[in-house]
This record gives sequence, C-alpha cells and structure tokens, in this order.
Amino acid sequence: MIVDALAAIVGAGNAFGPDAVEPRYLDDETGGEAGRPVGLVRPGNVDQVAAVLRYCHAAGQPVVVQGGRTGMTRGGLPRDGELILSLERMAAIEAIDTDAGLMTVGAGCVLEVAQQAAADAGWRLAVDIGARGSCTVGGMIATNAGGTQVLRYGMMREQVLGLEAVLADGTIISSLGAMLKNNTGYDLKQFFIGSEGTLGIVTRAVLRLRPPAIGRQTALCAVADYAAAVRLLARLERAMPGQLSAYELMWSDFFGAACVASGQGYPFDAAHELVVLVETESGDDEALPVALEESFADGTVRDALVARSERDHQRFWRFRDAVGELVGAMAIVEPFDVSAPIGAIGGLVTELRARLAREVPGSRPICFGHIADGNLHLALELAEEAQRPVAEAIVYDAVRAAGGSVSAEHGIGILKRAWLGHSRSVAEIAMMRTIRAALDPKGILNRGRVF
Amino acid sequence: MIVDALAAIVGAGNAFGPDAVEPRYLDDETGGEAGRPVGLVRPGNVDQVAAVLRYCHAAGQPVVVQGGRTGMTRGGLPRDGELILSLERMAAIEAIDTDAGLMTVGAGCVLEVAQQAAADAGWRLAVDIGARGSCTVGGMIATNAGGTQVLRYGMMREQVLGLEAVLADGTIISSLGAMLKNNTGYDLKQFFIGSEGTLGIVTRAVLRLRPPAIGRQTALCAVADYAAAVRLLARLERAMPGQLSAYELMWSDFFGAACVASGQGYPFDAAHELVVLVETESGDDEALPVALEESFADGTVRDALVARSERDHQRFWRFRDAVGELVGAMAIVEPFDVSAPIGAIGGLVTELRARLAREVPGSRPICFGHIADGNLHLALELAEEAQRPVAEAIVYDAVRAAGGSVSAEHGIGILKRAWLGHSRSVAEIAMMRTIRAALDPKGILNRGRVF
Repeated sequence: MIVDALAAIVGAGNAFGPDAVEPRYLDDETGGEAGRPVGLVRPGNVDQVAAVLRYCHAAGQPVVVQGGRTGMTRGGLPRDGELILSLERMAAIEAIDTDAGLMTVGAGCVLEVAQQAAADAGWRLAVDIGARGSCTVGGMIATNAGGTQVLRYGMMREQVLGLEAVLADGTIISSLGAMLKNNTGYDLKQFFIGSEGTLGIVTRAVLRLRPPAIGRQTALCAVADYAAAVRLLARLERAMPGQLSAYELMWSDFFGAACVASGQGYPFDAAHELVVLVETESGDDEALPVALEESFADGTVRDALVARSERDHQRFWRFRDAVGELVGAMAIVEPFDVSAPIGAIGGLVTELRARLAREVPGSRPICFGHIADGNLHLALELAEEAQRPVAEAIVYDAVRAAGGSVSAEHGIGILKRAWLGHSRSVAEIAMMRTIRAALDPKGILNRGRVF
Repeated sequence: MIVDALAAIVGAGNAFGPDAVEPRYLDDETGGEAGRPVGLVRPGNVDQVAAVLRYCHAAGQPVVVQGGRTGMTRGGLPRDGELILSLERMAAIEAIDTDAGLMTVGAGCVLEVAQQAAADAGWRLAVDIGARGSCTVGGMIATNAGGTQVLRYGMMREQVLGLEAVLADGTIISSLGAMLKNNTGYDLKQFFIGSEGTLGIVTRAVLRLRPPAIGRQTALCAVADYAAAVRLLARLERAMPGQLSAYELMWSDFFGAACVASGQGYPFDAAHELVVLVETESGDDEALPVALEESFADGTVRDALVARSERDHQRFWRFRDAVGELVGAMAIVEPFDVSAPIGAIGGLVTELRARLAREVPGSRPICFGHIADGNLHLALELAEEAQRPVAEAIVYDAVRAAGGSVSAEHGIGILKRAWLGHSRSVAEIAMMRTIRAALDPKGILNRGRVF
C-alpha cells in the first residue's frame, strides 16, 4: 500500500513494489548484497520529492537515495525495508548562463552529460572522475567527489554555487542564488555537500563553470625518490602558480602493471621506483620543459618525457588510466582511498608494503595517488576474502598514526563506518549526530550510512 | 561574582567586572552604542575557552565573542548583560609548514601579522582586506571575510584547511587535520565558517598558503559602459585563465572623488563613466597589454594605462584605496555591501542612483565593486540620520528584486538582521534556527546576531 500512496504522488509508472524493482537498483560496483527494499520511487520534480518525504517522515519509512551508485562505499544500496528513491528522472540541464559561466542542473544529471553541455556552451565543468559516464551531479555533491582536477579547481564543493535540497520532513531548501559572495546567515549548501544524503536530498544545483584551457602540457617524469617527487611538485607550483592541473604519482608496482595492461611497454631506458604524470594548463608551452630540465640537472628528475602531440598526451594518460583494468583483473580487491599530510605519504607506502607482505600473505598492492591533494590510492589484491579485516586494520591504523584520513574522496557510506573513529574524534562524531538528529529526527534518510 | 568564577579559570588579570572593561571593548567602527556587559574575559588557550563556556552554559550567561571588532555589522559589540569574550591573547603563529604551505594560527592573530609571517616563510596568505591591521583570523573565519583577492583565491572559507572551535557547552571540536581531501563524515569546519560565532567560537585554524606571484601586471582602463566592463572581464578570464587577481570597477561618482582624495588628478584625457582597475599575476608581462589592445580596437576599452613600474602600480591602487578617506569624510554614512548576478549590477546601480536622488534628498552615493564576484559596494552619504530606513528599504528591495544578496561580505550581525528575509527564505531561516538550537540550546553565543 506504500506503493499506492507513492503512485498518487509520482504516477503509477514511477512507483514500484519490492518485486517490481529492476536488478540495477540493487547492484553497485562494490559487489555488495542489497537488502530487500519495500519499493522504488522515481520522482520527477522537487515537489514530488518533497511529497514523498513528507509521507515517509510521517510513516517513519526509511529511504535510501540513489544517484549513479558509483560511490564505492555501498551507500546507495538498499537495506531491508528501505524505500529506494532514485533521482534519475531529474536529470535535465535546465539552464546555462554563458555570460556568467553558470549551469543549473538536476541532481540526476550524469557528469559526462553536464561536461559535454558545458563544453558545447564554450565553458568547462572542471571536475572529472573515472565514473563520469554513470555518476550523477547530485551524487557527486552528496559525497563531495574529487578526481584528477582537484589540484587546480578544487573538489565538488568548490564547483557548487547554489543548491536545492529537501529535508527529511519534506521541507524544500532552495539556496539557488548564484553569487560567489553571499554572507547572509549560514551557507546552508555547505551542510548538504559531503553529508552523503543523511541531512537532505540534493535535487538541483547551480554549478560554476570555468573558461577552457588555453594550452596544455603533459610530461611523464621518473623521480629519484619520494622526497624528490615532493620537491618537484613544490618547484612546479612556484614556477607556474595556478597552472598545474595534475600531478599523479605512480609507484613501481602500479606503473609496471600499467605498462603491461596498457600494452605500451616501459617508456624509460632504466627502471624507476616512482613515475609522475605532470600536466599543466598554460599558454606557455616551454615553462614546463624548462622547469623539468632544471630538476633534471640537480638529480631530482631522473628522466622525463614531454608530450609533443595530442597522441603523446593520450599515451601518457593511458598509463594512469589503466587503473580500471588493473583493479578489474583482481579477483578479490580492497580499494583503499586515504589521505595524509604530503610529507608522510612516502613513508606510509613503504611501511604498508612491508606490513602487508608480512601479515597478509599472497596480497598484492598497487599504489598511486593525487599526492598534491595528500591523496593516496592503494588497491590491494587479496588472496582470500578472510584477509579483508586484517588488511583494513593494517592500513587504517597506519593512516591514523600518520595523522591521515581513512577516506579522502569516497566518503564513509556503509563500508567504512567502522573506521570513522580513526579519523574523527568522539566530540566530532557527537556533533555530527546532533546535527543529523536536529534535521532528521526520525533518522529516515540514508539510515546507517556514515554513522 | 561571575568575575570571581572566571578569574578562577583565566587568572585575575584576565577577568574584569563591568566597571573595569576598557572603552576599546565597547567600540567599533560602526559608531554603535554598546550595552552594559557583565564583564570581560580573556582566555589564554582553548581549554580556558572551554571552561568559560561550560560555566556560561550552566549559568545561562550570554557571551559576545570579540576579534578585531572590524566587522561592520555591530556583531562584536556587547549588549546589556553579555559577557565579552576576547580572543586577543590567543594570537600566536603556532607553526608554519614550509614544505606543504600550511600555517597554524590562534584565532586572535591579526591578519597583517599572519600575512607577514607567511611572506617571511616564502609563502603567501592570499586574503586581504582593508582592516588588515586590526581584524583577526578568527573573526575573518567567523564571518567568511572576502576582500580584493577573492577572484583568484576565494574567500576566507577557501583558505581554511583545519579548524578548532568550542561549542556553547564547552565541547572542543578539533578538526585540525590539514588534508585538502578528507571525506570522513560531515566537514564540520564548514559549519562554523561564516556562522558569525553563533554555532561555536573559533579558537585556532590551519590556513592554506599559496606560492608568491611570479609577476604582476596592473592596468587602469576606462570602459565604454557596464556591458563593456562585463565583456572585458570575460575576455581576460579566457585569455589568461586563473591569472586575473583583481577586477575593481569604479563608477564615476567614486572615481571622480577618488582622484581628488588621492591628490592624483584625473588620469585620462576624457571623462569616463566607468573605470576598472585590472590586476593579473602572470609570468608573462605582455599578455595583459595585448588583451587590452584587442579590446581597445573594438571599442570595449576606451582608454587604458598600463603600469610600467611599481610606482605606477601603487598609483593605480591609490584610486581604489581612497575609499577609506572618502567614507571617512562622510558625516552620516550607510555602507552597503550587496551582491547580485554580474549581469544585473549595472542596471541596479542606475536604478539605485535615480531612486536615491529622488527619494532621499541630499544623499550622495559612491559606487564601486568586485564585480567579478558579483559584489557591489555602495557607500551612501545621508543628509540626516532619519533617512537611513528609507535608504535601506530602497537599496535592499532593489537587490532582492535583482535576485541578489543584502550582504556579500560583511555578514548580518545586528545591523542587517531586519533584512535577512530579503535574501533567505522562511525555510532557510528555519533550518538555520534548527541547527543553532541543536548546537546552542540556550542560545548563549552571540545571541541576537544573524537572527
């Protein structure tokens, strides 16, 4: 009968009982087992979202919010008894202000669609992640997604100028003002961004667009050691302030496998422990090579290949983008996404490799990261499922000891709940719970996620 | 006896009764009348702040938090019966990480001191406002201060990587992790930034530093009209992405007076309605002149002076910086700080000038703004105090009609409370109050500010 009530709001074609929910709503790329939902609702506009939530709030009906289900933390998979609320119908690009560089989009809009629309309008939506073909703008806002362009343009938070969201009780909060500066009371959009759907459901956003790059320079550099990687980064940031757009460090375990997986072979004459993919967006094609030459001269850079064509550029990125194939080929994988102060990451990798080799027999890590953001990805292939808890304890304990975070980009969702206390104090978690209880007193929104 | 209780926490030398409060704690630049406080307390560390708040929370004692008292909204002036809590003793620069570009400072640290310390360490704290000699880092965080460098580096929010704050009940929230990426639960620092001390007292911050500029180019341009000012801005942003660091538009009422006040005379051969101060930070000294020449050729720019020396640069900025003298010379002044979509600002100024001339006899506006941020400052000299309500209604009604904000940078404090509803919906304000009530159920922190 919940389906009848929902059908009265969204129409019969968009409300489904538990047996009519298509399998795709019960699946994500973490391979997790979904619970049995009470149904699925697909509202077509914000008023329908509000009406659905008013109903659920009154009935105490828990709701799980779905965007593209690419969040890596199982946050979007239903648990037993939850109503799935999918935003896929609210996917329109509603407006593009080509003078001011603003785009108004529905939460269900797929990232790649928004990127293309921005490009067609002569602008650029400056956030990009591997899941661009299926992740949604709303999901990226709810999880404050990162990606490869954070170094220059910031995380999803920095792209959001205005936001519309619906609270658990159905109240519509419309903060769609598109001013960069608006200090009138609390900046409510900041509360929703990154709260993983536990404080409200994001329904619409005004995104900031950037001008297209006027030039792009790419290089693949072998550096002497981790300290050299940090030194080179600092030099490039000083030599070309605000121009560095990617600095992707790949350890030998990753890079060696990426050479094989990409079918490109090893591009340097000698073997190196650390290779970094550098990208700048500058009108000056010579600034990057000049900076690299200086660093070659003093031994910071051991070898470097500078892209001289679009083909080179794509070839260099193929090493980094091989991560999908590498992880896909792992039978049992634990994808760690942690952050730490940049100075600590090199030692952290050394320590983790040694401990994992010793204490998780047969495991194989590949390490890479956006180190300028303090972000380390470590994809760990396990020999058996039973190794998961011990591997997690090793990695997250070491991250805590390094003053780091157990989730740099992906958030907490369901999978990382047990480790939240490794990165947040008792007082911080209590404050989060206070805010959550104030805004969703019955705890119906994404219950069991984050906390 | 409250003084005795506080003296037991902070020492007798830092707790004062109402008669012992020095006049400077009762004064700010708005000329407002302070109420009679119950006393003044100057804690020396976060544990003392926590102990003071535990006491005040238990006693239901309202507290007003003081940084540099330069906020322009009267938020820091005590009202009757409030305890003044000054953070001036917590002003240390505690650490600078010269590798990662991070600075840890106490909330009471004066901006200029922090800027100098960053510069001494080979870095740059990229936020600047006129009150730099007395405003504090904590106050700037509490009000999300803006300034002239927002265009390139963002507002105060974008400079804060880690934050420590104390809740109304004395709970210390320490989120001092200095990672750019940390998606572990809610980003609590975002809640405190811009909340004007109503959700907690900021005690310490980790600030992000930037590399120094590698070059600087300054120009003073007369543009054809407001549309031309917007067009020139868009062109510069596209020609030099990420390099534009200031775009300060001055209307003739402002610029004419600034020429007199600065003693520099009118720098162009013909009179112009709109003059813009452009600054870029680039390694290429020729990019700006080339872009300006193209805009001169098609009539967008009517005349332009390009700085060829540090002296020129300072001379150009002196026009803009004359605002202090101009406002200081006004007998009765209402300083408006509003924002609106950039396309609407030109029409807004035209409309406001006409209406103010008609309906506020003898008033005189001067208009200038960081229009790239959608920010318009309008300082209005009034003929008499009694004109204030009518002038405010004219300006804020027009701003609301333009879809703008009644406070771009300064916040709400006490002075703009009556106008909050012009920029925020009933639902938004209710959500703010819900959060406020959850975190400060007795409403002791900065009571009567914002709401």
